Amino acid sequence: MNTTVLTAESLTTNNFSDFGNVIETAGKNSFKINNEMCTRFDNLAEISFDIGVGKPIISIFRGKPYQLPIELNLMERHPLGSQAFIPIHKDPFLVIVASDLNGRPDIPKIFITNGNQGVNIFKNTWHGVLTPVVEECDFLVVDRSGPTSNLEEFLFEKPIILNFNLNPGLIAPQ
Amino acid sequence: MNTTVLTAESLTTNNFSDFGNVIETAGKNSFKINNEMCTRFDNLAEISFDIGVGKPIISIFRGKPYQLPIELNLMERHPLGSQAFIPIHKDPFLVIVASDLNGRPDIPKIFITNGNQGVNIFKNTWHGVLTPVVEECDFLVVDRSGPTSNLEEFLFEKPIILNFNLNPGLIAPQ
Repeated sequence: MNTTVLTAESLTTNNFSDFGNVIETAGKNSFKINNEMCTRFDNLAEISFDIGVGKPIISIFRGKPYQLPIELNLMERHPLGSQAFIPIHKDPFLVIVASDLNGRPDIPKIFITNGNQGVNIFKNTWHGVLTPVVEECDFLVVDRSGPTSNLEEFLFEKPIILNFNLNPGLIAPQ
Repeated sequence: MNTTVLTAESLTTNNFSDFGNVIETAGKNSFKINNEMCTRFDNLAEISFDIGVGKPIISIFRGKPYQLPIELNLMERHPLGSQAFIPIHKDPFLVIVASDLNGRPDIPKIFITNGNQGVNIFKNTWHGVLTPVVEECDFLVVDRSGPTSNLEEFLFEKPIILNFNLNPGLIAPQ
């Protein structure tokens, strides 16, 4: 059996809808507040989490960049809460997700952001680790904290290879 | 009675501790995750909210800049939930808060961020509206959404004036 090699597609609200929310202003409704001084793009993502023994928290992740091609060995999911990643910068990053197939990840889908997009990954959705591809950078993370385990990992039998050109023209911020 | 004129001080975890959390990496503990590729600055702020009829959401606020001197006419508080503002840029902004004095705001305190700081304002804490001072810019906002009112406003009998120099040396990102 040959090694699986995957490429990426541009992230949109539509192609990501099975996996989570895209947190961006482009194409979203808004309204004015604060005497017209502020535009609110409201409710771009809902934070869902198990309220019995956990609480939603805000953290910052500082991620080192990955070099393509990337060997994808592992995916994970969080059964008790959603997890949002919003870049505090304008570099694109990869979003790696998969549908569930009998308790394991199906073939992953690879999305690349446009520099103005964050994501909120739904509760219990398979995803890869945070994957910057340009330089070290910070992300705001909103997820669940609690005393009970909220992590399920799946190791692929053999690595899946992510390989494609990062076209500066395609990935530049809008 | 003379008009009250207030100046600003630099925001720190210590001087803001009665009003909320400072969301920043400087001086905060962290640990490595994802095979050493990522540094997690964990739990910089907790999202507190009334869980009976509301939910926490993520929005983006696009704020126009205010010019100094600023006339502060109004403060507000949200009795049912905390509210976090994290800049998706590196410009400083003003954070206006006040202790409660018999159901109205005491004399406000004015803080200025260093470009790498967000804030999470505690539930039911008096604060001013979002106040960028450099140029129009976006903020990630994490707060409560729900069918019941979560806004209390207080109008000052006469405006309080915020007036000080924005020293580029003092307010530059660290």
